Amino acid sequence: MRKINVGSRVTPYPMPVTLVGTLVGDKVNFMAVAWINRLNNTPPIWGAGINKNHLTAKGILEQKAFSINFPTVDMIEKTDFCGLNSGNKVDKSGVFDIFFGELKNAPMIRECPLTIECKLHDTMDLGTNLLVLGEVVAAYTENQYLSDGKIDIKKVNPAVLTMPDNRYWTVGDYLAKAWGVGKKLMQ
Amino acid sequence: MRKINVGSRVTPYPMPVTLVGTLVGDKVNFMAVAWINRLNNTPPIWGAGINKNHLTAKGILEQKAFSINFPTVDMIEKTDFCGLNSGNKVDKSGVFDIFFGELKNAPMIRECPLTIECKLHDTMDLGTNLLVLGEVVAAYTENQYLSDGKIDIKKVNPAVLTMPDNRYWTVGDYLAKAWGVGKKLMQ
Repeated sequence: MRKINVGSRVTPYPMPVTLVGTLVGDKVNFMAVAWINRLNNTPPIWGAGINKNHLTAKGILEQKAFSINFPTVDMIEKTDFCGLNSGNKVDKSGVFDIFFGELKNAPMIRECPLTIECKLHDTMDLGTNLLVLGEVVAAYTENQYLSDGKIDIKKVNPAVLTMPDNRYWTVGDYLAKAWGVGKKLMQ
Repeated sequence: MRKINVGSRVTPYPMPVTLVGTLVGDKVNFMAVAWINRLNNTPPIWGAGINKNHLTAKGILEQKAFSINFPTVDMIEKTDFCGLNSGNKVDKSGVFDIFFGELKNAPMIRECPLTIECKLHDTMDLGTNLLVLGEVVAAYTENQYLSDGKIDIKKVNPAVLTMPDNRYWTVGDYLAKAWGVGKKLMQ
């Protein structure tokens, strides 16, 4: 089958759906962020590509802290609402129930099954976006989301995103054991 | 429900499953990488956290180029095989059918429905991992993976990964329109 060059502006299939929480001045704000992942083992550092003009970039640079929150599929309307509306124009501080962990300036969302608080490690200007690198201070879940002491994605029930078709998807069925199923090919 | 602090070593729910392709010397190598995402809009830059001791880090620094390949669920055994075996010990150059795009040193996997070639933009030492930032030169797919001119994740049929339970999952059902479903809350 012939390969087609589809240009340079593709994104991963798929991306995680997260809400990045910040304090801007004394106001809590949340931004929908899909360009985010863990990037380092030790220390545990995550990176996110945040548009430099967004209020979230301002809050992170100001406070040197932020949170990463994983909403469930049941929270998709509120999550998308945060993606549709800039904190510059809309006060999003009342959309969710907030709690704080060890840091007192990284607001987290109580309804989210997994929330992570980060202190700012470093930044890099990439062009339109600021690469924000955060070291994880702590992560929070609840007993109801664990199986065998580990977070269970089928209980968390997160969404994933594809662009440029701009669609949210659920996570599907168990496929195979990682660092396991490939052993079949090792004879 | 009471929040539990689960420490700092969590990862996203879920992560994409990719194979990063490099040339090391004159040998083609592929590494399974889940700590990867797009991080910048313009120019289109992706970032990956690559263990500094892995052959892939050496190849990227040597060639200033690499590829990102999205395997289908049908390729999960071969993908996991690449995750289980270091290029330092196992020759992975024959696992897949290879092609090249505009760059002549970023080997891509013909069987993958989406492959991306990148030139090295910058790196940052994060500790155990090297943050590798690559600017996308071009991306390749085939007509069979498109719907309405856009890549269709249900045709691509990629896997996602969760850690530390180390499980691969499929992508599930269509959930909602991004930058759309949240409009319901905008009255």
